[in-house]
Amino acid sequence: MTTSAAPRRPRADDGRMGAMDVRAPRSPRAGTRASVVRRHNLGALLECLHLDGAASRSQLGSVTGLNRSTVADLVQELAERGLVVEDGLSPSSGPGRPSPVVHVRPSAAVALAVELGVDSAAAAAIGLGGHVHDQVRVELPRGSSPQETVRLVAELAASLGVAPADPRVTGVGVAVPGLTRRVDGFVHLAPNLGWKGVGLGSMLADALGVPTERVHVGNEADLGALGEHRRGAGRGYEHLVFVSGEVGIGAGLVIEGRPMLGAAGYAGEAGHMLVNPKGRQCTCGAFGCWETEAGEAALLRAAGVRGARGVAAVDAVVEKVTAGDESAAAAVAEIGHWLGVGVGNLVNLLNPEVVVLGGIFQPLFPCVEEPMLSAVRARSLAEVSELVSVVPSDLGTSAQLHGAAEMVLATVLADPCSR
Amino acid sequence: MTTSAAPRRPRADDGRMGAMDVRAPRSPRAGTRASVVRRHNLGALLECLHLDGAASRSQLGSVTGLNRSTVADLVQELAERGLVVEDGLSPSSGPGRPSPVVHVRPSAAVALAVELGVDSAAAAAIGLGGHVHDQVRVELPRGSSPQETVRLVAELAASLGVAPADPRVTGVGVAVPGLTRRVDGFVHLAPNLGWKGVGLGSMLADALGVPTERVHVGNEADLGALGEHRRGAGRGYEHLVFVSGEVGIGAGLVIEGRPMLGAAGYAGEAGHMLVNPKGRQCTCGAFGCWETEAGEAALLRAAGVRGARGVAAVDAVVEKVTAGDESAAAAVAEIGHWLGVGVGNLVNLLNPEVVVLGGIFQPLFPCVEEPMLSAVRARSLAEVSELVSVVPSDLGTSAQLHGAAEMVLATVLADPCSR
Repeated sequence: MTTSAAPRRPRADDGRMGAMDVRAPRSPRAGTRASVVRRHNLGALLECLHLDGAASRSQLGSVTGLNRSTVADLVQELAERGLVVEDGLSPSSGPGRPSPVVHVRPSAAVALAVELGVDSAAAAAIGLGGHVHDQVRVELPRGSSPQETVRLVAELAASLGVAPADPRVTGVGVAVPGLTRRVDGFVHLAPNLGWKGVGLGSMLADALGVPTERVHVGNEADLGALGEHRRGAGRGYEHLVFVSGEVGIGAGLVIEGRPMLGAAGYAGEAGHMLVNPKGRQCTCGAFGCWETEAGEAALLRAAGVRGARGVAAVDAVVEKVTAGDESAAAAVAEIGHWLGVGVGNLVNLLNPEVVVLGGIFQPLFPCVEEPMLSAVRARSLAEVSELVSVVPSDLGTSAQLHGAAEMVLATVLADPCSR
Repeated sequence: MTTSAAPRRPRADDGRMGAMDVRAPRSPRAGTRASVVRRHNLGALLECLHLDGAASRSQLGSVTGLNRSTVADLVQELAERGLVVEDGLSPSSGPGRPSPVVHVRPSAAVALAVELGVDSAAAAAIGLGGHVHDQVRVELPRGSSPQETVRLVAELAASLGVAPADPRVTGVGVAVPGLTRRVDGFVHLAPNLGWKGVGLGSMLADALGVPTERVHVGNEADLGALGEHRRGAGRGYEHLVFVSGEVGIGAGLVIEGRPMLGAAGYAGEAGHMLVNPKGRQCTCGAFGCWETEAGEAALLRAAGVRGARGVAAVDAVVEKVTAGDESAAAAVAEIGHWLGVGVGNLVNLLNPEVVVLGGIFQPLFPCVEEPMLSAVRARSLAEVSELVSVVPSDLGTSAQLHGAAEMVLATVLADPCSR
């Protein structure tokens, strides 16, 4: 177990029923039930190893609440299915014999993770345990059509050294800056890509030669939240807000440990919260949206940076501020203020334990921290704001890729026997 | 079944395990399990009747997925425990014999529901099925101390004709306009009552002569949301935002059918969202909070109504507008605009199916609907806003009382054998 904060550990079975020790079905009817419970327990065990790293059988027992022989039995099945291996012996941490160390096999189940940004596209092959087998990022010309983008993704995927149709590839996960429908990968609207009504899921399935149901498309901020929650700055928290700062601003929410996507999957459109009625007009038509006041364009305009975009442009701003450029510093402080106003709104409304700032706000964090926190404190009730940590992303530009991989690998964790 | 929209119907057991038909334990171990499942199924059946009204056994079977003999067996136990009665015969709705109609006994389990407002306090005895046995509301002088308020609540409770210590009284549920800790009824902060750090739960337990653990204290907007979700305009929806307009504005959230309280129970402090940086200073110290721009004080000030408060004052405003007072109409339109700005933020962020406007916004609804909806449309993405209904509260001033009762009665529904 590698986390220091109390990690969210999947319990075998659910709390209401208590953990069950089910080994072999005894009748057809019992068999059906036992099989469901067993699959669930196999998944819970695999998820422990996937999220928290290698563990001895006895550690797995104490985390899942399953007894020694059940753990042995489940580990054996996971090993037979090629999902885990046991080797070495753990240093004895108490009475009894030291037990072998169990760990996942990163190549046993692999997700093809894709992130479509406004200025770049990235792809990665990410296996069990969050192991990044390979990763690539290229510039994407603004205004690329869905067809051009899909062609580029297919090229990126081909360069990763694992064919999308390979049986070890569980599926393809795609992060898109827009309103997406998870069930079929339809992109309703991606304003900053200039897309509306794009059947991205089926286009990608065709281009990659995989069945449509193996392509999962999600909103980039939702997947950033998932990535940070499971592998980044949000580990161990149950209530998390991820703020993704790109050309636009999006929020991804985790509530009681689970992604909160809203009724139609559109939750988290925080970029269009009003923060400044006297502000500029947004691409959405309204004035003074959060992303208009605190997004990338506002930052670069205020800091007088031209000709660069994305993380490179933010680096240029940070350099200016570090070099003592007072007008750049004032500009960044202004952005920090509006960033904090929006974060304060989210804190008041959602009472999270942690707000993780990603995208451009990660490299910008040290420059904006003070005005941002000061605005958060001014805008939110002291009783609520003193309970929240506002921290920079751990995963940086990989948050969305890890989230996309977790979305895909969830099918294996839900039922390790499905493969 | 009385709802027209698809109601949220509790399933017997959980979906993963499939509904179980467990009648008699066969061994000590199986007994433990069966007992847990049986209690759960008893609760699921009782919840159906509690929320959706009387039903025949066959209707209960089709709603819960349990077979005929299991339903008969569970109904028998609920009847033996005095929680339900069977009488009459349902009109035959298909093949087979008509079966008796089962309904809850409203006096078998009663919640003592209390609402503390800024200007009034209310109490009600509410039984299974949401049956209001008795209800009373009195004015509360502004600035009443916790001690004075508790004394008043005890008097109100005594007037209800059912003693708090009566074994049929499941518990006491209290709605407070402030930050509350459910576990022990501690009120951290109730700005509009002028309270800070009040051990309300234990004070009420002492005054009413009941154990502390039977007093449940919740935020009034959270309980309004619960009331509307289970018995009002939010029935049948899984994603709901309740906006409570009183002296302050609060929001209560229901997400995936469950109350969303946040990490420490403080979620929904929407009243302090920034909507207008040029606005007035709020009691929280910040400027241009939602409740400063769209709350009761703003309304009465703008509409030129003096000397009245609460629903009576709002009635005076509505009368003015209806009588053709143009300046009152303009004032109300301005309030409607700011109300809509905040609702638009919530819609963008949470992607709810329905926003229920309660408190003063219920009687005000017809006067503010147009400017409010226009601001919602201007502020939120069309793809999100076209999916949401913004409707007035069904329960009006009783929403919080019903929510407080549901909070208390939940213990009976979770385990009907616990009594």
